[in-house]
Amino acid sequence: MRVKVAVAQMDPVLGGIAQNLKKTIGFINTAAAEGAKLVVFPECSLTGYCFNNEEEIKNNALTVGDEWTRELTETARQANVYTIVGFLESFAGKTYNSSLVIGPNGIAGTYRKAHLPSLGLDNFVSPGSDEFSLVETSIGKLGVLICYDIRFPEQARILALQGADILVHITNLPLTASSQVDYLLPARAIENRVYVVSSDRVGEERGFRFLGRSSIFGVNGETLAQANETDETVIYAELDLQVPRQKKVFYPAMEGKPVDHVNDLTGSRRPELYSPLIKL
Amino acid sequence: MRVKVAVAQMDPVLGGIAQNLKKTIGFINTAAAEGAKLVVFPECSLTGYCFNNEEEIKNNALTVGDEWTRELTETARQANVYTIVGFLESFAGKTYNSSLVIGPNGIAGTYRKAHLPSLGLDNFVSPGSDEFSLVETSIGKLGVLICYDIRFPEQARILALQGADILVHITNLPLTASSQVDYLLPARAIENRVYVVSSDRVGEERGFRFLGRSSIFGVNGETLAQANETDETVIYAELDLQVPRQKKVFYPAMEGKPVDHVNDLTGSRRPELYSPLIKL
Repeated sequence: MRVKVAVAQMDPVLGGIAQNLKKTIGFINTAAAEGAKLVVFPECSLTGYCFNNEEEIKNNALTVGDEWTRELTETARQANVYTIVGFLESFAGKTYNSSLVIGPNGIAGTYRKAHLPSLGLDNFVSPGSDEFSLVETSIGKLGVLICYDIRFPEQARILALQGADILVHITNLPLTASSQVDYLLPARAIENRVYVVSSDRVGEERGFRFLGRSSIFGVNGETLAQANETDETVIYAELDLQVPRQKKVFYPAMEGKPVDHVNDLTGSRRPELYSPLIKL
Repeated sequence: MRVKVAVAQMDPVLGGIAQNLKKTIGFINTAAAEGAKLVVFPECSLTGYCFNNEEEIKNNALTVGDEWTRELTETARQANVYTIVGFLESFAGKTYNSSLVIGPNGIAGTYRKAHLPSLGLDNFVSPGSDEFSLVETSIGKLGVLICYDIRFPEQARILALQGADILVHITNLPLTASSQVDYLLPARAIENRVYVVSSDRVGEERGFRFLGRSSIFGVNGETLAQANETDETVIYAELDLQVPRQKKVFYPAMEGKPVDHVNDLTGSRRPELYSPLIKL
């Protein structure tokens, strides 16, 4: 199955929820008109990120089910797409750095950021503590990660082992974090043999500048599409989901005498040797 | 503590153990004369890799403690260096794709390849099944991986969590595997905040060509030294071992209003969420 995916690199306004929602809906309709079936927004795309104190957190946290959710659900239904947005969430008496996957039939899944850096609103929210699980959609199995999560190979690995076709990374990378785009994101694609779709934001909040460079990577780490460091824009790639479902890697014949071989990236694992990962 | 490390990118002769040993000793002395305290050789540097059948495996497997070990130990003692060599090993009635760390005081550690691809002698040997552990030396803690091992983020992670200063990757990369040098090796450095020293071979065995591009990476994934695709050569870098021992990452102030912050790459892990890694 082939699916066209879109990454909307936007510049959310801190606390400007109505403006951000309007812009989000515009990007969804633009991408859908181009044939995209998945439209990915950055971390905290609806709320902004650099909140400075508890009062700001309290005043800007969104609740799933409120009017904004209905507007996005209606947009996704009419455009016949899945979309992933990021936001500061109020849930069951706590706040989280959250994502929501919304499809043509409504909410498909949520994920709350598990690994929290010492930055922006992450200084104030609770870490997500749900088991890492996939969002199953009619356009493939999605594994969602938020920003700093990508530094921890364990999470991407767990999502891939459950059968993720696409790792969706929504992020607010600092300007200094280009090595994460250059190395970490393509490495997650290669080691897990999955697509990696990373939506970053551009612009500045309270003197904190963001990197942009939203990207879509193929399973060999190749860059299929990449945005620049400054512009609000939408990038696209068409993905063949049969590729990440085949974990046997075939090395083609090389020059001289051909020596073909096939490696099973899942079957070659040695989980009996990995218990220190949960003990150290 | 600063330590100068050397990677000897060589072209071993398949089954030419005496030649390979002589060349190895030459490279050790060359690197020691340049001030290196660690000299890293490729996977199967003493024996070659593309053995085709059980008889060849039986005839070319080396046993630790035999004369070659004494020659290398004496060389390391006189040169006052640690060295890591790769070889097809006969041990306790089985064969392995092995490495040996030899220092000024003799054998410091061994590691037998845990993840086996369907290629060369790996089609015939047993997988190593010892727990992943560090080789502690007077020049830092070394975590050894062999070739295909690097595709599995779990192993590098476990070695880093135990306190590795340097991940030593000895390899025989196929010519088509450049994405492993471009992305996987620097990613292992970044995600674990360790140095990564990768020694690959050049040349050809039975029509199978090797990539070369031996490399030394800093903890931000930056290339400190890299060899080309064809030449037997030695590359060097001077490493400050205080750097990988500090797992708190400081992001410097950015343009505009400074927003400094520190992330603890070890403390931010969520091992309570990682159990699928040993169950899936």
